Amino acid sequence: MTYQVHGVSSSGNCYKVRLALEQLNLPYVWHEVDMMNGATRTESFLKLNPNGKVPVLVIDEQTALTESNAILCYLADGTPLLPADRLERARVLQWMFFEQYSHEPYVAVARFIKQFLKKHDDPRLPDKIAGSYRALDVMEQHLARRTFFTAERYTVADIALYAYTHVADEAGLDLASYPAIRAWLARVKNQPGRIDMPSVDQ
Amino acid sequence: MTYQVHGVSSSGNCYKVRLALEQLNLPYVWHEVDMMNGATRTESFLKLNPNGKVPVLVIDEQTALTESNAILCYLADGTPLLPADRLERARVLQWMFFEQYSHEPYVAVARFIKQFLKKHDDPRLPDKIAGSYRALDVMEQHLARRTFFTAERYTVADIALYAYTHVADEAGLDLASYPAIRAWLARVKNQPGRIDMPSVDQ
Repeated sequence: MTYQVHGVSSSGNCYKVRLALEQLNLPYVWHEVDMMNGATRTESFLKLNPNGKVPVLVIDEQTALTESNAILCYLADGTPLLPADRLERARVLQWMFFEQYSHEPYVAVARFIKQFLKKHDDPRLPDKIAGSYRALDVMEQHLARRTFFTAERYTVADIALYAYTHVADEAGLDLASYPAIRAWLARVKNQPGRIDMPSVDQ
Repeated sequence: MTYQVHGVSSSGNCYKVRLALEQLNLPYVWHEVDMMNGATRTESFLKLNPNGKVPVLVIDEQTALTESNAILCYLADGTPLLPADRLERARVLQWMFFEQYSHEPYVAVARFIKQFLKKHDDPRLPDKIAGSYRALDVMEQHLARRTFFTAERYTVADIALYAYTHVADEAGLDLASYPAIRAWLARVKNQPGRIDMPSVDQ
């Protein structure tokens, strides 16, 4: 079976899915979505995801799954990327919900404003930058005593948080005072099968 | 074993945890957190959750779990509230991530501004209300052909989305044109063991 993925290559949320598919060696076809020109608002796309967001994983003709972190859990279920232990699994989810609530709405949105909209003096940026550093502070404290976010091994929690953290500079963030995050980024970068995320203007 | 829960009784995110504990008939002690007077910013609270948010589930002296929806999955693991099937489990997560990204930041924040901060002319409200109706539109479309969010049975996805939707009026929202949501709210309300969420000023 071959998965169909509808996504924007330079979106961190979409990159998560591609990275997991590559590292799990799963067959897929990538369908690039022209989000900036309204392609997530068409009738055919809203049939795939009524919430109008990428990525979408099409499993079969009747089955489309949305929400990047739910897709990660689906793909990783039964593999070393998602622990089977009840508490470890909940910890993976804890960090994934942290990512979507306390990290992505700041880091990813700041990056979107700067790289996609090219609005370097957008009035939302100061709040987005402040929130980004609050999330990075929590991550730094956690990683100071650990190799990965949970279970002392590489999981989908790391994929979820890596996606936008590894391009923090594109959001106007400076990781100089975050040594534990930088060491973790290097460990994730060295995982087998890792692929790069294309830059926005590529 | 008795769980310790640190939460704010009138917070929907905290109510999710209490509702699941009650419906799963699990023993717990509730510790009310005086969030509006800075209790989530104290040194002792930040040891429980460095991200400074409620709820926190303390499992044992070494183990605290955060993020309401991760806590729900932990508590429900192995029970009918969380399907064992891989795709159904991913669908539960899909709706929980939808809740935290596309619903809670609008509905819960609008309710917080109105009920906790009492700022009925806050400049953020129009955006929060518009986002709330976008989320409700997605839910209405989905529920029009279903009894519950996934697997045609009551799961933690319903608990997650019920928490703030059932007090949508406190956020200034009108559910009159959402008949499928209202029918679903009634079905959730009739689940065995359901408890009420205290109002903010109670």
